[in-house]
Amino acid sequence: MAQPEAAQSAPPENINVHKAFAEEKADWTGYVEWEEYPEKKALASKILKASKFTPIPEFQFVPLPDTNPVLIGHRWKEYHEVLGLKGIVDASWETVQREKPDLIHLLDFPYNGETTRQQLMEGRLTDNKYHFVRNHGGVPNIKEDVYEIEVGGLVNKPVKISMQDLKNPEKFPQAERRIEQIHEYPGDGDELINAPWGEGAIGTAVYRGVPLKKVLKIACGGVLPDCEHLEFIGADTYFKKNHVFNYAVSVPLRKVRANQGTEVLLAWEMNGEPLPKMHGYPLRLVVAGYIGARSCKWVYKINALKEPSMGPVQRQEYLYYTPQIGKQNALYSNGFSIQNMPVSSAIIFPLDKQTIVHDGKITMSGWAYSGGGNWVQRVEVSNDGGSVWYAVDEENMTTKHYHAWRLWKYELAVDAEGWLELCVRTWDSSNNTEPTFVRSAWNWDLHVTSSAHRIKIYSINTTRPASAKRLKELEEHGQAIDTRSLSYPAEFSLEPEEEYLQKYRKYPREPAN
Amino acid sequence: MAQPEAAQSAPPENINVHKAFAEEKADWTGYVEWEEYPEKKALASKILKASKFTPIPEFQFVPLPDTNPVLIGHRWKEYHEVLGLKGIVDASWETVQREKPDLIHLLDFPYNGETTRQQLMEGRLTDNKYHFVRNHGGVPNIKEDVYEIEVGGLVNKPVKISMQDLKNPEKFPQAERRIEQIHEYPGDGDELINAPWGEGAIGTAVYRGVPLKKVLKIACGGVLPDCEHLEFIGADTYFKKNHVFNYAVSVPLRKVRANQGTEVLLAWEMNGEPLPKMHGYPLRLVVAGYIGARSCKWVYKINALKEPSMGPVQRQEYLYYTPQIGKQNALYSNGFSIQNMPVSSAIIFPLDKQTIVHDGKITMSGWAYSGGGNWVQRVEVSNDGGSVWYAVDEENMTTKHYHAWRLWKYELAVDAEGWLELCVRTWDSSNNTEPTFVRSAWNWDLHVTSSAHRIKIYSINTTRPASAKRLKELEEHGQAIDTRSLSYPAEFSLEPEEEYLQKYRKYPREPAN
Repeated sequence: MAQPEAAQSAPPENINVHKAFAEEKADWTGYVEWEEYPEKKALASKILKASKFTPIPEFQFVPLPDTNPVLIGHRWKEYHEVLGLKGIVDASWETVQREKPDLIHLLDFPYNGETTRQQLMEGRLTDNKYHFVRNHGGVPNIKEDVYEIEVGGLVNKPVKISMQDLKNPEKFPQAERRIEQIHEYPGDGDELINAPWGEGAIGTAVYRGVPLKKVLKIACGGVLPDCEHLEFIGADTYFKKNHVFNYAVSVPLRKVRANQGTEVLLAWEMNGEPLPKMHGYPLRLVVAGYIGARSCKWVYKINALKEPSMGPVQRQEYLYYTPQIGKQNALYSNGFSIQNMPVSSAIIFPLDKQTIVHDGKITMSGWAYSGGGNWVQRVEVSNDGGSVWYAVDEENMTTKHYHAWRLWKYELAVDAEGWLELCVRTWDSSNNTEPTFVRSAWNWDLHVTSSAHRIKIYSINTTRPASAKRLKELEEHGQAIDTRSLSYPAEFSLEPEEEYLQKYRKYPREPAN
Repeated sequence: MAQPEAAQSAPPENINVHKAFAEEKADWTGYVEWEEYPEKKALASKILKASKFTPIPEFQFVPLPDTNPVLIGHRWKEYHEVLGLKGIVDASWETVQREKPDLIHLLDFPYNGETTRQQLMEGRLTDNKYHFVRNHGGVPNIKEDVYEIEVGGLVNKPVKISMQDLKNPEKFPQAERRIEQIHEYPGDGDELINAPWGEGAIGTAVYRGVPLKKVLKIACGGVLPDCEHLEFIGADTYFKKNHVFNYAVSVPLRKVRANQGTEVLLAWEMNGEPLPKMHGYPLRLVVAGYIGARSCKWVYKINALKEPSMGPVQRQEYLYYTPQIGKQNALYSNGFSIQNMPVSSAIIFPLDKQTIVHDGKITMSGWAYSGGGNWVQRVEVSNDGGSVWYAVDEENMTTKHYHAWRLWKYELAVDAEGWLELCVRTWDSSNNTEPTFVRSAWNWDLHVTSSAHRIKIYSINTTRPASAKRLKELEEHGQAIDTRSLSYPAEFSLEPEEEYLQKYRKYPREPAN
């Protein structure tokens, strides 16, 4: 891959960026308030427009680097640097190294990291250390004892609540919720514009916190009649087309009220431990069944609104386009917004492009999930690219939970040899399943895992006499058993001369007359 | 790609390889006789077995180098070097540079080179300078005035014929034949073991020479009743699994006799000029409708045989395997031999992965061919990966000839935008056509062009208002119009804020109730 050109960026000489874009509050390190100060946003825009940044690298037609981290977030680092916020970049990477040393680092900044396959299949709950991370900006570093959250907008009584009050069970009733976080990952390789997500962008954790519904009711005396959406603002800084924002997203009031309020929690605990910084310490939203982007981290403000949030993440990203709008005609108004996650599943083992020596059975395992309050009913796998489908037995799947994955395992009958396509699809409690082919569900900008996941494997079936014989020969000649040893000309003779001539004469190549 | 390890090869100390494997005749530079001397072959084998050669590089899972030549034939050079035949390697490359400077050099030794797309579509006959080359060994350098050909085996009278006599029209009647040469090329990228052939491995030339049938009759008094095959031996040296050979192939007597003998010529002229050295000067076979490998170059011996040639190229290569024998169980006896070429076609323009801005029509062009005495009847193209097929008009195809290609051109209606698959297929005079998908016709070791050729293009249709508008915007912002500019986030705003909000409110993302 060509090295990106070096950026040539510097703030205008007469502006002290460190002063202009200083942190808002003591002990709220890494938090700059933007939304309250239009003139500050305008100044940042001016500086960004006047600066030059490293071009976006080419991902579509070149192989990904095999480095760790896979990709380097030159541009986002430079956005921060030009505004005097380099400290956020450095502190974020330190947090990655402390809290998430063993993830697959897809992008160093904003940090995007994925769970390894082995860890993913370890248990029904993902250990905090191994849970994947999708950040949209730097990681703030805020002390819990000074933290407070502001709730305003279309509510009867705007309030500020300290963490201490929020965590007091005598003030607010607490709840726990097992929640799947799942990130979209690209399906076809030709439209990859962010981090190269794979099948490890999923994880399950139990969160503890207070239902947002209860906070609105108890602390604010309820919402006003016009309120239809709740907006969440996070302490991280977000950039879009030379403008700067605090991270902002929203969910409908309907979702906040669903299931006695247990779908939308203000959470401070993850699997019985304090939230890691990477996951939003001291406080985050967790929104069950929705795309992870709505579960705002480091949330310090909630606004009750008539309309969905005007933040770019809510309005201009995480949209589903139809193929014939596609890339070239995408507008923010012609994609629909992803809130609920569709039914999704993935094969974790075997690996794509793996050579498998087997005796007629190949063990597959993976995960299955559905959003929107649906649960996984059935998982099916195919050994022929999606014509014949076998159902996974219930005893080989983990227990059903609302809003959580099921892990599955299957011994697939495979007779055929050579390159085969293995697939998985899942049926959920609303009888949805995934389209069979990537192209059937292709949509630009994002690809949630909404088509049947498929891998190519090279099958060698030892129950076939010819393969058993060949494997023995390879072994005798000290050759590895892999697609390479099988597809390059053998150094040794494949069949004795006499055997060959006997067959050659018995079934001659030319007709008799 | 990892650098291959350096070879550690040297002939045994007590053997003077230059003497042991000296050239057979004066002024026959580069020709070593192997087939007459079993003890010489055995000695060469011994040396080859005792030597270590550069490992075969990995082609299957890594991208091809973008060097010129694309691949370097380390092993074949070393085979020659260890036998004291480095002179052949050097002389061959000099000949390439003199005769074929403008081919795409796929492999430097043995030389494999392909015609560029532009040259390929220049005319109905391919200029000698641009005709593709598939060699299996080095290029001998033999003076015509000392050259002679020996005809023996199951004939009434074994003879030697000088070039002077062969070219004397009073001794042998001459004939011309327009002949397609076509080389197999790999279809799916995962089994590439030789040169990375593409769609330019085809060419048409008119050859002049003497029908082999006439030589057998006039010079040898005919063949004996047991003769069923004619074997051709070439002056180039061929290696296989530590054994050394002269290049040897055969065709059935039936083929030699077909069509008054005009299908199999001993040729010295190509498109009205003496044969280039790369193409077999001073004398070669040309076998119409067969795979090019049978058209033996630098032929100095013809043997009339009961059975097909026992040479490895005839017996052990150019075989068709069935997928479930595939790589791991391939034996020489379980593939069938490729003689006649199947119906084949290719798209030459547009290029694979090209971005095409068009007004509802995309111009496609390419070639179509069929072997075995069949000719091209109809060419069809598809704009949807192979469901709907449009026939090319006769006026947009070149004239039919026996054993020659037809070039074609078509204005394809394309409404859809984004990544599309365009395909071509051909119907021949026996009503054969190509299978639609590569995998339908997959066979290991070789892939002749026997499935519908398909390319992916990125379509931008300017008759669609949204695309016309976007192209104008890209132009105004000085951005190139390609898949990159269309698939990366635009630096400029995609739609005015008010327009967006108007649509957003007219068609809200959430249901009314």
